[in-house]
Amino acid sequence: MLFYTESPLQFAFSKLWGDGESADDTKKFGFIGIPFDSTSTYKPGSRFGPRAVREASYNFERYNIILDKNLDVSLFDFGDIEVIQGNFEKTSSIIEFTVKELLDKNIIPLAVGGEHTISEGILKALDVENTTIVHFDAHMDLRDEYMGEKYSHATVMHRIFDLNPKDMIQIGIRSCSEDEISFAKENKITYFTPHEVNKNIDMVKNAIKNIEGPLYVTVDIDVLDPAYAPDVGTPSPCGLNPFQLESLIHCLKDKEVIGFDLVEVSSSEIGDITSINSAKVIYDFLAVQ
Amino acid sequence: MLFYTESPLQFAFSKLWGDGESADDTKKFGFIGIPFDSTSTYKPGSRFGPRAVREASYNFERYNIILDKNLDVSLFDFGDIEVIQGNFEKTSSIIEFTVKELLDKNIIPLAVGGEHTISEGILKALDVENTTIVHFDAHMDLRDEYMGEKYSHATVMHRIFDLNPKDMIQIGIRSCSEDEISFAKENKITYFTPHEVNKNIDMVKNAIKNIEGPLYVTVDIDVLDPAYAPDVGTPSPCGLNPFQLESLIHCLKDKEVIGFDLVEVSSSEIGDITSINSAKVIYDFLAVQ
Amino acid sequence: MLFYTESPLQFAFSKLWGDGESADDTKKFGFIGIPFDSTSTYKPGSRFGPRAVREASYNFERYNIILDKNLDVSLFDFGDIEVIQGNFEKTSSIIEFTVKELLDKNIIPLAVGGEHTISEGILKALDVENTTIVHFDAHMDLRDEYMGEKYSHATVMHRIFDLNPKDMIQIGIRSCSEDEISFAKENKITYFTPHEVNKNIDMVKNAIKNIEGPLYVTVDIDVLDPAYAPDVGTPSPCGLNPFQLESLIHCLKDKEVIGFDLVEVSSSEIGDITSINSAKVIYDFLAVQ
Amino acid sequence: MLFYTESPLQFAFSKLWGDGESADDTKKFGFIGIPFDSTSTYKPGSRFGPRAVREASYNFERYNIILDKNLDVSLFDFGDIEVIQGNFEKTSSIIEFTVKELLDKNIIPLAVGGEHTISEGILKALDVENTTIVHFDAHMDLRDEYMGEKYSHATVMHRIFDLNPKDMIQIGIRSCSEDEISFAKENKITYFTPHEVNKNIDMVKNAIKNIEGPLYVTVDIDVLDPAYAPDVGTPSPCGLNPFQLESLIHCLKDKEVIGFDLVEVSSSEIGDITSINSAKVIYDFLAVQ
Amino acid sequence: MLFYTESPLQFAFSKLWGDGESADDTKKFGFIGIPFDSTSTYKPGSRFGPRAVREASYNFERYNIILDKNLDVSLFDFGDIEVIQGNFEKTSSIIEFTVKELLDKNIIPLAVGGEHTISEGILKALDVENTTIVHFDAHMDLRDEYMGEKYSHATVMHRIFDLNPKDMIQIGIRSCSEDEISFAKENKITYFTPHEVNKNIDMVKNAIKNIEGPLYVTVDIDVLDPAYAPDVGTPSPCGLNPFQLESLIHCLKDKEVIGFDLVEVSSSEIGDITSINSAKVIYDFLAVQ
Amino acid sequence: MLFYTESPLQFAFSKLWGDGESADDTKKFGFIGIPFDSTSTYKPGSRFGPRAVREASYNFERYNIILDKNLDVSLFDFGDIEVIQGNFEKTSSIIEFTVKELLDKNIIPLAVGGEHTISEGILKALDVENTTIVHFDAHMDLRDEYMGEKYSHATVMHRIFDLNPKDMIQIGIRSCSEDEISFAKENKITYFTPHEVNKNIDMVKNAIKNIEGPLYVTVDIDVLDPAYAPDVGTPSPCGLNPFQLESLIHCLKDKEVIGFDLVEVSSSEIGDITSINSAKVIYDFLAVQ
Ligand SMILES: [Mn+2]
Ligand SMILES: [Mn+2]
Ligand SMILES: [Mn+2]
Ligand SMILES: [Mn+2]
Ligand SMILES: [Mn+2]
Ligand SMILES: [Mn+2]
Ligand SMILES: [Mn+2]
Ligand SMILES: [Mn+2]
Ligand SMILES: [Mn+2]
Ligand SMILES: [Mn+2]
Ligand SMILES: [Mn+2]
Ligand SMILES: [Mn+2]
Repeated sequence: MLFYTESPLQFAFSKLWGDGESADDTKKFGFIGIPFDSTSTYKPGSRFGPRAVREASYNFERYNIILDKNLDVSLFDFGDIEVIQGNFEKTSSIIEFTVKELLDKNIIPLAVGGEHTISEGILKALDVENTTIVHFDAHMDLRDEYMGEKYSHATVMHRIFDLNPKDMIQIGIRSCSEDEISFAKENKITYFTPHEVNKNIDMVKNAIKNIEGPLYVTVDIDVLDPAYAPDVGTPSPCGLNPFQLESLIHCLKDKEVIGFDLVEVSSSEIGDITSINSAKVIYDFLAVQ
Repeated sequence: MLFYTESPLQFAFSKLWGDGESADDTKKFGFIGIPFDSTSTYKPGSRFGPRAVREASYNFERYNIILDKNLDVSLFDFGDIEVIQGNFEKTSSIIEFTVKELLDKNIIPLAVGGEHTISEGILKALDVENTTIVHFDAHMDLRDEYMGEKYSHATVMHRIFDLNPKDMIQIGIRSCSEDEISFAKENKITYFTPHEVNKNIDMVKNAIKNIEGPLYVTVDIDVLDPAYAPDVGTPSPCGLNPFQLESLIHCLKDKEVIGFDLVEVSSSEIGDITSINSAKVIYDFLAVQ
Repeated sequence: MLFYTESPLQFAFSKLWGDGESADDTKKFGFIGIPFDSTSTYKPGSRFGPRAVREASYNFERYNIILDKNLDVSLFDFGDIEVIQGNFEKTSSIIEFTVKELLDKNIIPLAVGGEHTISEGILKALDVENTTIVHFDAHMDLRDEYMGEKYSHATVMHRIFDLNPKDMIQIGIRSCSEDEISFAKENKITYFTPHEVNKNIDMVKNAIKNIEGPLYVTVDIDVLDPAYAPDVGTPSPCGLNPFQLESLIHCLKDKEVIGFDLVEVSSSEIGDITSINSAKVIYDFLAVQ
Repeated sequence: MLFYTESPLQFAFSKLWGDGESADDTKKFGFIGIPFDSTSTYKPGSRFGPRAVREASYNFERYNIILDKNLDVSLFDFGDIEVIQGNFEKTSSIIEFTVKELLDKNIIPLAVGGEHTISEGILKALDVENTTIVHFDAHMDLRDEYMGEKYSHATVMHRIFDLNPKDMIQIGIRSCSEDEISFAKENKITYFTPHEVNKNIDMVKNAIKNIEGPLYVTVDIDVLDPAYAPDVGTPSPCGLNPFQLESLIHCLKDKEVIGFDLVEVSSSEIGDITSINSAKVIYDFLAVQ
Repeated sequence: MLFYTESPLQFAFSKLWGDGESADDTKKFGFIGIPFDSTSTYKPGSRFGPRAVREASYNFERYNIILDKNLDVSLFDFGDIEVIQGNFEKTSSIIEFTVKELLDKNIIPLAVGGEHTISEGILKALDVENTTIVHFDAHMDLRDEYMGEKYSHATVMHRIFDLNPKDMIQIGIRSCSEDEISFAKENKITYFTPHEVNKNIDMVKNAIKNIEGPLYVTVDIDVLDPAYAPDVGTPSPCGLNPFQLESLIHCLKDKEVIGFDLVEVSSSEIGDITSINSAKVIYDFLAVQ
Repeated sequence: MLFYTESPLQFAFSKLWGDGESADDTKKFGFIGIPFDSTSTYKPGSRFGPRAVREASYNFERYNIILDKNLDVSLFDFGDIEVIQGNFEKTSSIIEFTVKELLDKNIIPLAVGGEHTISEGILKALDVENTTIVHFDAHMDLRDEYMGEKYSHATVMHRIFDLNPKDMIQIGIRSCSEDEISFAKENKITYFTPHEVNKNIDMVKNAIKNIEGPLYVTVDIDVLDPAYAPDVGTPSPCGLNPFQLESLIHCLKDKEVIGFDLVEVSSSEIGDITSINSAKVIYDFLAVQ
């Protein structure tokens, strides 16, 4: 680089890997973009998510007035993963391979999709069995098949359930089939509707705070009401508001988070509300690390 | 139709009339689009409402998690009514004629506008005198004339009042002239501002629940805050949120609804927030039938 | 239907199948939408093509002033084919199956995509070996593989070439790899750049007029300059203008066209320029049938 | 006004009436906006035309490099006429009344619509019988009725023909019904398609130059190709380009123009291509006065 | 003006200066637009604010149903101030000069930006020392320098602090640097986050009601949540909602407001949510005068 | 980087500096973005140009079918230069400093703006006196002052003229003041209107081909017609088309270009027509190096 130039697009507060960092013991996060959106059934475009979230991240200050602290996490932006639009299987293998590379460097994956299916490849690279999955979404994504397909944004949580995690909590759910509800109930998957969050957010906060052992967080940004996140693959009315999501993400403080993803961000304009609120989810998560 | 093809645009959960249905005694709804918007004074475009609402309806599941029940209503999509832009009188006659055709088939009209004036033609076809009008709107629409015109989106509720309904309740009102307020008060038209809904929604719910006899529901989607419905003819800040509207619509359970319309949806993009929230109003209404 | 209602979205000038038509000997076209776009690598959204083209078709008159004749072709709109986003193989089989159903009814397929890969399924249903392929596109689409994939919008013409057609003519080409150019030259695939069309359109017209025997036409709307078709999957500057495309499509007069498709229309707004120019391609084709 | 302030929205190069101007003998033009669009059948919004054209006018320089002269015409901006959306008859009377007020002040009307119907009211105020109508449009607008209506954007030139002008020339026509063509031929209305303009623009220029006596010019901006004017009520492909329109407007030099209107500009964004090209039409016209 | 015409763009309820008004003793407000936005660092475009706010103002009624009173304030629209994009210093001098002209006429300035820096010029024209500054904003804007610059949207409140006002209250703050927080604390600047407003709005209301002596109000519209004001220079999640802002503005009743500005409105479309909510701020302010 | 990841946003075909390249003798280009747009007077937003051009560059193939050759130039992307919005002087110094750093490495600057003023800083770093300036633009930009300012997008070519270049050629000019025309004529600045390009492009090509010695190229993308580049600061109708611009850029083959810039690209959406045509200008230039 020249004296006055800078890389035009990496997540705010991040460094590029290789700027003299060694693989030491401090907690490190590795930001990766995964611009894959081939199984989207309503509005495609979550491939633009990584770019939108990086761009919007520059609207946030290192100092966090709500928490009265500075963001001091060690974060590296590794760029985007190569994806094969139309080929989930191959893309998922690449995701898994790449996340393993991060883990080899002792780096916690922090992925931005792309559609929700990308979580599957990440979780296959991790040790899921002792892990609680914390899932923010308007949808359960628990179908066993969708239009005959095993792998889809509508089945991804079923596939993750198949990996046998310790537990699964779903927050913000307001759209599902009768079969999904039955599956959730049979398998003791806890879920909270936005109506329940409105009525008693402390109950939901406690559900997160009470988690023991490692946890993985997956945020489908459609968990927010479309007023706050209109550019998503499948918008669903009556969602959470950003105050609620902020306070729930802040509950991850002192938790052992082994991975985090944010998916379904489909913004195609600079600084739109979906990308701003999406970047904030990561900003809020990093703030409590 | 061929084996794998389907009609590209009818309301989700609906059948086309003539697919073997007889005019039996079960409760049936007839979806009709009425793309008329000639008297709009600020932003035109509610002619695109029927298309937008049908398109967005595919984002909803038959299973309703909030009510824990499946949508099982008998609904037929009859397509759009022919309208004459610029000629309200003729258009209104066509609306009235068409609604009478539905009534002859023992089908309850479920209309999507178009601007608010379309309600007048529907109500002229119905037996209004014993009916309570439930009116969701940011505006009273009670002017006697608007810019010298008797028929306008701004006078429609006065025209409906002229049909001598049993009662009229207005919910979400935050914009009116002094004359409209006087008229409402003189004629014992009940109205609730969003501020009153915020303070005591149970009072408003009870106002609906206490209605006896037949009722007609007209929803001007600008009743929602523009954050939830920006693409309307005359946006007005400080509106209802979708949780409030959902719970108020759910109060129509077990009521004898003889007709329903949703108006002023001006979305021109696929899956935008106005069309999603508009489709939800109908989805919520059908769920309690 | 009721007296004054009509189906809100079928191609202008078309009838619905089953309105009393028998499978007689007159030439008939079957309009089908194929909203599949999973392999798009740049801008997704051609799934919205069928809706956009149908909507825009209402801007055209039955009388064609350029040709001084009325459009009198027999056209049926069969709605949209069910597609599986993310699964090209299955989608392609459904396309092939559906086109065979049309052929069984003695109906010529007239398909609107979706991305360019959809042509493959259509052509597998047809007798390709004696057929000349007339291909309008900014891109050769002749790669053998793209990102390791055999089936992609960037390889579709290679796959069609593998079906062993009699001949292949490409018009409007301005973007390709060195390998594609070599492949075209080795296999005697004729191609014309827009620069050649500008210099001598009669040469290109004659290339079409001189085709003998059956032909299949596939129009990737990115053949137009992005000024006329900005909403496409992979826009490419220096394309044809609509006057040129109109006159080339008119050269199909008196030709034995056994199938026609129009792909890569990604409009998501009503009446935008891409959908208007796309609908015109079909309008112009039908006018010379 | 204060020292450093100015009226935020009047046409560039114009003065406000009453700034010390007397009704003397110099040629004067009166700019009026007429934001009426109730009979639009496809895309409404030409009500925003006056605002868009005024706003865009600030992109032009007083010096005209093509003509090598400064714009020195006497132009007054009278603001917008009050219109009654949904009531053509009343609106048309107001237009006629207002234009007569201009004529009383010896001012030539220069109107910006609004939809094409607004021309009717203007021409009723003028002495049409000795006047040649020069009509730029994609459409003939010569229907006697449209959807049963006598007054509509699709019938306006028939209504103007009924006023018995000396002659009528239509330029840019590419969309009409068979009846309109017959009517034009029977009544010796000259028309030129864009294809004819492309082939021999000098023929069209001469048609204008050869006009004798007073003329009235009405420009439906959809005469331009949608690449240059996408935001119009009924876009039609294969239109004129701005070079052609500029040179045709320049043919009005030394002609006795008794009125001018520009209609169907539906821009709703600042500085979009439709408003820029629309403002240029007026700029080019004023330049040759 | 002619009988039926009106100026196309002045704030609703306002008169133009010079329509027979004398500089008498009644309270008068002078609306001025200040379209300057050169120091914006994220999204430019607040230069379009004055136009957007004026346009949107026509959606409000003279009668205010929430307050049950008619708007009867004396308001004059003086148009826009000439600004020099790229030259803050000169622009600020012009602002100061113009505001002094208003004060000479005994008129209270009511300015619409433009970016936040414009407040500085206004306040330099006023007697600040006895004045309390009421500042609505997502950001503190208290930096001493931003990117080495003394004058910037990010430093404006520091510059105003340098003018030595009696007191400063900041409402809606959720984004600042650690230095800004320290500065605010050291200098006894009161601030309230939206979280505090959510928890106890009465405390914030009292902070306003308890102000004694003259006050100046500056509203950076990004104080609202981006769901209600997406088109601003630097959007920040978790903001106020319009009910909260309305009730806080209404607290200005009976206060001695010596000036008011509204800044950072960057709407470029007609009737969008940002401009509607922005116009309402002024409408609400005028309602309590 | 990890095995499968890549930097999300650098110009296609470029490498990052420091990937093992030494400062040897081969011709090298250094891509720098300069997102400065503070003096824009109509539509701001050219700050988004560097991002838009990089993003759009991925639509082009290494193989150039028009020239029948592969792009094999040595190009490095150095990211974006730090700019100070609102402070031209400081920004210009940073630009000059940075370009000198490139020159020290024997790298030819290839800059993407930002507004046109950025050219000044670049040229101050170069040896201008023996250099011919080739200037593509709708506007002369030759004013000595604009609104009292010496440095502005409207004066930049005058400032460059002040640096005393050998010669200056302006192509595409269609908007200027009378003073600019006089200045051009007095100082033997050659200029060509688009009308002249239409009539005799060979004359213009020869003007470029005949240049001797070093030359600097500055392309204001508004040189294209707004149909091809609508998102620019000051759109001007009747511009060049991309075929014309391509063939003129190709005339730079075998010329000694010492620097190149592309300015006024204001795209804020992915893959829009302005960014595609802008990226092509650079692609075409690199193809003939
Ligand atoms: Mn979801
Ligand atoms: Mn999901
Ligand atoms: Mn309303
Ligand atoms: Mn209403
Ligand atoms: Mn293509
Ligand atoms: Mn293709
Ligand atoms: Mn027309
Ligand atoms: Mn017309
Ligand atoms: Mn702020
Ligand atoms: Mn501020
Ligand atoms: Mn320029
Ligand atoms: Mn320039």
